[in-house]
Amino acid sequence: MHITALAGGVGGARFLRGLLHHLQTRPGSPHQVTVIANTGDDITLFGLRVCPDVDTLLYTLGGGVHEGQGWGRADETHSVQGELAAYGASPQWFGLGDRDFGTHIVRSQWLGQGHTLSEVVGRLATRWGLPEQGVRLLPMTDTPVETHVVIDDEDGQRAVHFQEWWVRMQASVPAQRFVVAGMDRAAPAPGVLDAIRQADVVLLPPSNPVVSIGIILSVPGVRDALRGTAAPVVGVSPLVGGAPVRGHADACLAALDVPVTPVGVAGLYADFLSGWLVDEGDASARYDARLQVRAVPLLMTSVETAGAMAGAALDLAAELPRRG
Amino acid sequence: MHITALAGGVGGARFLRGLLHHLQTRPGSPHQVTVIANTGDDITLFGLRVCPDVDTLLYTLGGGVHEGQGWGRADETHSVQGELAAYGASPQWFGLGDRDFGTHIVRSQWLGQGHTLSEVVGRLATRWGLPEQGVRLLPMTDTPVETHVVIDDEDGQRAVHFQEWWVRMQASVPAQRFVVAGMDRAAPAPGVLDAIRQADVVLLPPSNPVVSIGIILSVPGVRDALRGTAAPVVGVSPLVGGAPVRGHADACLAALDVPVTPVGVAGLYADFLSGWLVDEGDASARYDARLQVRAVPLLMTSVETAGAMAGAALDLAAELPRRG
Repeated sequence: MHITALAGGVGGARFLRGLLHHLQTRPGSPHQVTVIANTGDDITLFGLRVCPDVDTLLYTLGGGVHEGQGWGRADETHSVQGELAAYGASPQWFGLGDRDFGTHIVRSQWLGQGHTLSEVVGRLATRWGLPEQGVRLLPMTDTPVETHVVIDDEDGQRAVHFQEWWVRMQASVPAQRFVVAGMDRAAPAPGVLDAIRQADVVLLPPSNPVVSIGIILSVPGVRDALRGTAAPVVGVSPLVGGAPVRGHADACLAALDVPVTPVGVAGLYADFLSGWLVDEGDASARYDARLQVRAVPLLMTSVETAGAMAGAALDLAAELPRRG
Repeated sequence: MHITALAGGVGGARFLRGLLHHLQTRPGSPHQVTVIANTGDDITLFGLRVCPDVDTLLYTLGGGVHEGQGWGRADETHSVQGELAAYGASPQWFGLGDRDFGTHIVRSQWLGQGHTLSEVVGRLATRWGLPEQGVRLLPMTDTPVETHVVIDDEDGQRAVHFQEWWVRMQASVPAQRFVVAGMDRAAPAPGVLDAIRQADVVLLPPSNPVVSIGIILSVPGVRDALRGTAAPVVGVSPLVGGAPVRGHADACLAALDVPVTPVGVAGLYADFLSGWLVDEGDASARYDARLQVRAVPLLMTSVETAGAMAGAALDLAAELPRRG
């Protein structure tokens, strides 16, 4: 079975770790999981290229993540950032640990040697044992793109990098809109469109529907591939009871004037979504009649509960006909 | 009093720390010390620009050096390099600690932003408090240069980066000659020639006469400035009893067919040297009759003994007439 998933950071990574756990409990069913990662969060810090969502996926699936915070490395120290602060280098609001710096340094070195981001992610994934787990991790595009957030301040509107809005401002300043610098000249990374077209199942984990999944959908060709694939596309709501389980999806949806509800989020995917997994408390909402909705507990408090969610998504997909 | 010194790494840094200690004990004599640092040892590792001699000078004069090894930072950890090894990045024979990586990252960032190496070294020196100590640290040139070592191997001659020969091979493979890549288009950094011309005293610390001092002397214009300055030029022998106190000066001198003696080293500076400080055990050798030679204990086992050496060099300079 070939499963293709679009993923952002923590929510996507935890769901996919659950998916791998679930697949391991089904003996005799070989699988290939292709993960298409958002790279709109990428940022150059201290001259080094940082890919937060890719790294969260690597660390989580590879067993190196800091469980408590959901991103970054376990057993982390912060000598490098302390030195950078002593030299007066900025920004200091983006926390990078020493082990994490190792990833950013080697990625920047390889990119500087002329390797594509796909090639670099492939190398990083090898160190983290993803191929052995049947996982192929692809960046959504090899073109450097960056999500910027348009906000109002005293002097009118200005655009800040997504990470500045998300991390430094904690999404507390209302976003007027999101603009992805570089997307006009971006192409999907090698394998991305084929992974969607040739999948048996396409999954949308409970990642942020605007700044994670939404950014991947804006890569030229991706949305068309999702509309055209014969595979059922099953999404998992990132909202439970009208609020995001984690992160600032509410602030992102507000910028788009989309209701902060599983109905509102499903509407963003209406042109290609066939199955929609929502929390039990959201079962009674009025969803699009063409959508197959299933309600289960949507909490990823452990690998096992995340695995149960992923299993429910696969079960729902198995009940849906191939399309087209 | 304006003192200008040409310096390599550990030996130069310890001598200059001694010099500053000595100057502090002479109240009422304001001083300005300009240090012209060798940058031929510079190397790009993991995409980051590393300047070993500059950093040893910064860390030693700034109070952050690892005293035992003479270079690198005290209280160092090695998480970053461990990660780079896990990713299969090379080389692994050049040990870089986490705090040290902070310096290389910020330097590479600033260079990448278009600052000259002089500007970058000035910023780094500010963090380490060098200006407050009356020290101005200049790289010998802002042009990227790299000392390469020509060695024989099975397939004939090949050139390796100086650091590979010095650190990985521990200078155990005979050097046929030294070649400085980039030197043909190099110019002295701003202030270098004026610091030599306008000095009251020029000092040559006991740095390696071939791959530290010798490289600085090969920057176009530097040797002529030393020949032309009115200031006495006083050198300190890096050899005691026919062997280097530290490092591989013997292997470097052998490549030039220069005797591994204080007489041999002084011969390398014959066209501009006016005073020569040697160890007491080397007092009886036959030096050039035009050279004012003074014998004192040449061991830098502490800041105080290094200070005494530096004081002896200044005393010798004070006895020499201004030239020209």
